[in-house]
Amino acid sequence: MADVSSTVRPFEISTTEGGVVAPNGFRSSAVHCGIKAKAGALDLLVLAADSPAAAAGLFTTNLVQAAPIVVSKRHLTLSKGHARAIVVNSGCANACTGPQGFADAQQMTREVATGLGCATEQVLVASTGVIGVNLVMEKVVSGVRSAMASLARGRGDEAARAIMTTDPFPKEHAVVVQTGRGSFTVGGIAKGSGMIEPKMATMLGFLTTDASVPPSMLQRALADSARETFNAITVDGECSTNDTLFAMASGASGVTIDDDTYPALLEALLAVSRALAIGIVRGGEGATKLIAVTVRDAHSRDDARQVARTIANSPLVKTAVHGADPNWGRILASAGRSGVAFDADRAKVRVGDVLLFENGLPHDDAAPIAAEHLKTTDIRIDVDLGTGGGASATIWGCDLSAEYVRINGEYRT
Amino acid sequence: MADVSSTVRPFEISTTEGGVVAPNGFRSSAVHCGIKAKAGALDLLVLAADSPAAAAGLFTTNLVQAAPIVVSKRHLTLSKGHARAIVVNSGCANACTGPQGFADAQQMTREVATGLGCATEQVLVASTGVIGVNLVMEKVVSGVRSAMASLARGRGDEAARAIMTTDPFPKEHAVVVQTGRGSFTVGGIAKGSGMIEPKMATMLGFLTTDASVPPSMLQRALADSARETFNAITVDGECSTNDTLFAMASGASGVTIDDDTYPALLEALLAVSRALAIGIVRGGEGATKLIAVTVRDAHSRDDARQVARTIANSPLVKTAVHGADPNWGRILASAGRSGVAFDADRAKVRVGDVLLFENGLPHDDAAPIAAEHLKTTDIRIDVDLGTGGGASATIWGCDLSAEYVRINGEYRT
Repeated sequence: MADVSSTVRPFEISTTEGGVVAPNGFRSSAVHCGIKAKAGALDLLVLAADSPAAAAGLFTTNLVQAAPIVVSKRHLTLSKGHARAIVVNSGCANACTGPQGFADAQQMTREVATGLGCATEQVLVASTGVIGVNLVMEKVVSGVRSAMASLARGRGDEAARAIMTTDPFPKEHAVVVQTGRGSFTVGGIAKGSGMIEPKMATMLGFLTTDASVPPSMLQRALADSARETFNAITVDGECSTNDTLFAMASGASGVTIDDDTYPALLEALLAVSRALAIGIVRGGEGATKLIAVTVRDAHSRDDARQVARTIANSPLVKTAVHGADPNWGRILASAGRSGVAFDADRAKVRVGDVLLFENGLPHDDAAPIAAEHLKTTDIRIDVDLGTGGGASATIWGCDLSAEYVRINGEYRT
Repeated sequence: MADVSSTVRPFEISTTEGGVVAPNGFRSSAVHCGIKAKAGALDLLVLAADSPAAAAGLFTTNLVQAAPIVVSKRHLTLSKGHARAIVVNSGCANACTGPQGFADAQQMTREVATGLGCATEQVLVASTGVIGVNLVMEKVVSGVRSAMASLARGRGDEAARAIMTTDPFPKEHAVVVQTGRGSFTVGGIAKGSGMIEPKMATMLGFLTTDASVPPSMLQRALADSARETFNAITVDGECSTNDTLFAMASGASGVTIDDDTYPALLEALLAVSRALAIGIVRGGEGATKLIAVTVRDAHSRDDARQVARTIANSPLVKTAVHGADPNWGRILASAGRSGVAFDADRAKVRVGDVLLFENGLPHDDAAPIAAEHLKTTDIRIDVDLGTGGGASATIWGCDLSAEYVRINGEYRT
């Protein structure tokens, strides 16, 4: 009997074009319906599967949840993890909008469901933009109908642009996975932390695949990949009322994901999600540098993640990186206040490849070389906790610039 | 039999002059010994009690602890809460300095003990300044000897200046407490978050009283008052390797603190500590506005404190205040990600006295009035969680300005 696992485990992943509609079985349409004031600015997206797809979702952990979050959670439950479409608007978050906001989010899904001839619970919805302002539903309904009439393949770039707010560039990525059972594709788009007239930042991500994946496995794969990507980034430590990540699996490739091929799906989701998540950080408000903070030799991955996140969110570390100051003291002190136990005398701090602190003492002569690394735009901070636990994690963040303050505070002055 | 409690409970507190040497039984001397490069800049302080005083201390919770923290903790334990003096230097944190740093901190206390003729463990030590650099002990020893030779009363202003780093102004305060048993005085000095050549911010606070207080009661009073003052402020959420708060009680007033008079001591410590702590925030790096965040009707004081702290540390709230933007959405979203459970539909958000959000909906017409309040320098943010729990807490923070970024990052560019 052939060893099945040996024939399907080896897989190869390569980048491809097409973004969120690269996988077979999906069409999209992006329109300007007038939620954004700027003429022609895309502000509404419908992403539709040709037939009911497996669907999974992750949502903000903020207690204050926008209407589309409430509606989408309910729909995923009612549909037992199946969806025909996702409808997204930018320019208005539909958050803190009371019962009217809830009715509006429901109406968005109903319009799409009518157009596709499916149950309302098979449509998911997401919004990003101003908080506390209601959607002008006349515009939205007209936009949805217009989008439904022009669904097409090959519009991934427009889909990526339609969900942007003040993101400096669109974020899309796709990969093809070759397995012993055939090939499948994973694609996605995302938007990040841009201020929206001038209220709130929100992260949205939409992933598609033409692999066939049971809903519960898709949910698990989405959570597993997000932990290392979308949930491993930080711009300013804020968490919005609207953060949403959806995945849909059409099955159109004919490749079925089971326990043997799960690693291939996970790796593909990780590859797409990592590209999108890092894109969000690079496009963070006022960001001029990407900072990858890796913490090694912690007792657990959770410990490593917590230390890395504390360092990546430290305003003193972020400003030091901005100023190209190899300030190991701020890095070590951030780790020390993270709530994770370690012995500072066993810890090592590196900036780039330069060892700046070990055995409780600094290597001051190495500082000028580390300063050179900090003048680049891809910064690496590496802290070895020396606990013997061997666990590691990476968090991606960005520097803190005066531009961040200007974007978020000074536009009214 | 007379009701003792009714004769001692009423007390009156009034502000007085003299700072940390306002209470009887203390002398101080501040000198320039050359740790700071600038000619004549005070960089060493000895604060001495005329006879052994009760002593208490609170220290940074950072795992990375500077040598003077380790030495002072040990001395407080060995002396069972008694001290003759505190020696403090600014300009060098003596942190991450290995065994040599530890020996240097010990030597500082030994020099003072020799001068006073007391046991070494009756001297406490604190440092603030650059991390990872050793003290030049020749200068420090000469400074300590010179200070010991010039101990005097009435030099509170110099004491406050000697512990400054880049603090924009010195912080000192004192109050007299009139009780049925006589009057006593509480005084103090503090320094806050100023960058030090360009490594680290540290908070130091030193409190004195001429009441007679058992060491364990002094420790309890220090912890109780710090919880609502020094531990209720935030500039940037960072916690240093050197944060130290000491209290000494000389007993020279003849008023003894017991359970009946404890409230008078606590109120006096709170008054002095609050003035010093708010001074630290006002003098925070790049701060242009003081923000008092009060959270009401939480399930517990800890819950209220956690929500208030999350709001006060939110970069989006801090930048909105800086830009005079009455952004209730950012305030509510910060509360929502604080980890404390509440129902957003029952919450109320006020800026100044202006109600901006209730019943799940904004009061947009009130925004212009709130914006006027935000143009002042004393900002009040008030969030009522509506849990029915009735607990409240206040945290003081400051706005986030481009100047913060410049101070902490751009000085090298």
